[in-house]
Amino acid sequence: MTITDVARRAGVSRQTVSNVLNSPELVREETRDRVREAIEALGYRASQAARQMRTGRSRLIATRIEPDRDGINGSVLDRFLHGLTASAARAGYRILLYAAGDERSEIDTFDDLVGSHEPDAFVLTSTYHGDGRPAWLRERRLPFVTFGRPWGNAGNAGGASGGEAAGDPEHPWVDVDGAAGTAAATRHLLDAGHRRIGFLGWPPGSGVGDDRRSGWTRALAGAGIDPAGLDQATDDGVADGEKAARDLLRAEQPITALVCASDSLALGALHAVRSLTASGQLTASGRLTAEGRLTVAGQAGGEEGLPVRVIGFDDTPVAKAVGLSSVSQPLAEAAAGCVGLLTRLFDPPSPDDPEAGGPRTHVLLQPSLVLRQSS
Amino acid sequence: MTITDVARRAGVSRQTVSNVLNSPELVREETRDRVREAIEALGYRASQAARQMRTGRSRLIATRIEPDRDGINGSVLDRFLHGLTASAARAGYRILLYAAGDERSEIDTFDDLVGSHEPDAFVLTSTYHGDGRPAWLRERRLPFVTFGRPWGNAGNAGGASGGEAAGDPEHPWVDVDGAAGTAAATRHLLDAGHRRIGFLGWPPGSGVGDDRRSGWTRALAGAGIDPAGLDQATDDGVADGEKAARDLLRAEQPITALVCASDSLALGALHAVRSLTASGQLTASGRLTAEGRLTVAGQAGGEEGLPVRVIGFDDTPVAKAVGLSSVSQPLAEAAAGCVGLLTRLFDPPSPDDPEAGGPRTHVLLQPSLVLRQSS
Repeated sequence: MTITDVARRAGVSRQTVSNVLNSPELVREETRDRVREAIEALGYRASQAARQMRTGRSRLIATRIEPDRDGINGSVLDRFLHGLTASAARAGYRILLYAAGDERSEIDTFDDLVGSHEPDAFVLTSTYHGDGRPAWLRERRLPFVTFGRPWGNAGNAGGASGGEAAGDPEHPWVDVDGAAGTAAATRHLLDAGHRRIGFLGWPPGSGVGDDRRSGWTRALAGAGIDPAGLDQATDDGVADGEKAARDLLRAEQPITALVCASDSLALGALHAVRSLTASGQLTASGRLTAEGRLTVAGQAGGEEGLPVRVIGFDDTPVAKAVGLSSVSQPLAEAAAGCVGLLTRLFDPPSPDDPEAGGPRTHVLLQPSLVLRQSS
Repeated sequence: MTITDVARRAGVSRQTVSNVLNSPELVREETRDRVREAIEALGYRASQAARQMRTGRSRLIATRIEPDRDGINGSVLDRFLHGLTASAARAGYRILLYAAGDERSEIDTFDDLVGSHEPDAFVLTSTYHGDGRPAWLRERRLPFVTFGRPWGNAGNAGGASGGEAAGDPEHPWVDVDGAAGTAAATRHLLDAGHRRIGFLGWPPGSGVGDDRRSGWTRALAGAGIDPAGLDQATDDGVADGEKAARDLLRAEQPITALVCASDSLALGALHAVRSLTASGQLTASGRLTAEGRLTVAGQAGGEEGLPVRVIGFDDTPVAKAVGLSSVSQPLAEAAAGCVGLLTRLFDPPSPDDPEAGGPRTHVLLQPSLVLRQSS
């Protein structure tokens, strides 16, 4: 029995029911009577109403919008925000947006918001090693969920995929299994006969980056391949990716395929393949000419002339536009998962509820591989 | 004299000053005293405070986030939202996001928000002919600004660029001069020697689309060129753009350059040029072979072999990734302009203020042309 049922029976909005319970003077007498009749007829208990009012104080969920930086990878959180707004609306919540430059200013903003708009909960994005935000909120008993798992305090904790990296098991989070995504990409390339499959990622110490690298390592290990010399770490950007990919393409033992931690890096890698091809250092078949060094080694079935394959991560609009294969995150599902966990925090199932043993405080979603011309 | 001056003098946030005035029990005594001393020292008048409190009630600005559709063009409003959140924060406001499918549900949401979170103002995006939202808000004396000028009630009003298309001169809006953008793109192509410059746009009746088409028509007229047969109208999408561009490239008198109303259409046009080239119907030099029909006519200086040039609109990340020239909207400036107009509504300059005759209720910003390989 919820406020929605009362609203439906009385033929009014949820807000009107809420007003009748909280600020009856705002509601016309006739409407007030109709709502009170519905409350009585449905046996909607005052204590339940009180809890609804207590937990549903502002009906606002606060989340940060990050500065507009890389238009390619930044689109992921934008798409998450679209999904979050839609999912929140279905649950009767609005999204309160704030901007914040760093952790200190984000926590100052929490403080300010708690004293002003009183959001019912926070959705934190982009978790990182040593993330101080969850503890701050937890100490003040402010409900939150993170999109991104807790990565623990140590940098370079490495491949904690699927587990609780560190900290509070009660920390509610939704994440996408990045390692599963890069492992699937790597296996796809192994199945196509590639052995020298490189990885283009970020410097060690980033939770998300280390997780994505670990999927590639794991898939290579499954095929008995030593990953040594097959990866490069660089800042995230198209020019950075191009530079690092050139190194891998011109190495003593060049790669024939490449899995990347982002579409920005993958786009840079495509540029590297194209410019090496255009300057005659890489033939269209994907092997360096006599002047260069690339050969396709260890292929199954003796198939020759594979081009250099590239797979990105995040399936951004740019990937679609340039024909880049990429690992796709289920962002609408992630957003719905965040709202679902919050709803459960606001309104926990009773112990004798059959769903009480159901969804926990963690949701790890599986990504999917979208194949296009680049692979 | 504003609440900001009081806050600065007392060394506290605006919110704290607001709390002292509205809910003093929330503020520690020592801080309360400091704020009251600042109010007294500065001669901040109670009547002014009352107005500030009345107009600055929630410090929330409500805006819609549109459904996640085309990842290419949708990025424009996402970037606007980033800018809006940052500009609002600098003025002491937060953004309240809502989702709405159509005008009816958006107006229902206005109604709901006014009764619940009481936003101080609304920022409306994507204005259109017959837009019923401004009138609804105006009737209820709810402050708003639109990103997009009012296009009037008649469909296909055509080319009201820069003027007040219709309605209330008090309607505050910020927009980007789309016609100036397409005119600059067209003039750039004229300067390069092109005469048969096509336009790929949307069906007549869209304010934004008609405006963008009018800039192309105007620039051609300035060069004495008849636009007949040089344009196509289609839905906005990559596949739609490809199909329409093929028609223009294979016409009796084919185009040699193309200005597009969006990057989605322009990306489709690039695909059309590439696939006609790959199938041998269009040579790399941009002319159709004997089998086809494209010739470069009327070039200045007798230069031959120009490729088919393409220019998009909105300078999305996809344009950058594929080397597409495009018209760029100053989105951060547009967002700041919206917040500026709202601030002025909340706190109008007094008649003897030197700025009183300054910025009006309309801001029309100039776009810029970003040139890349495609042109």
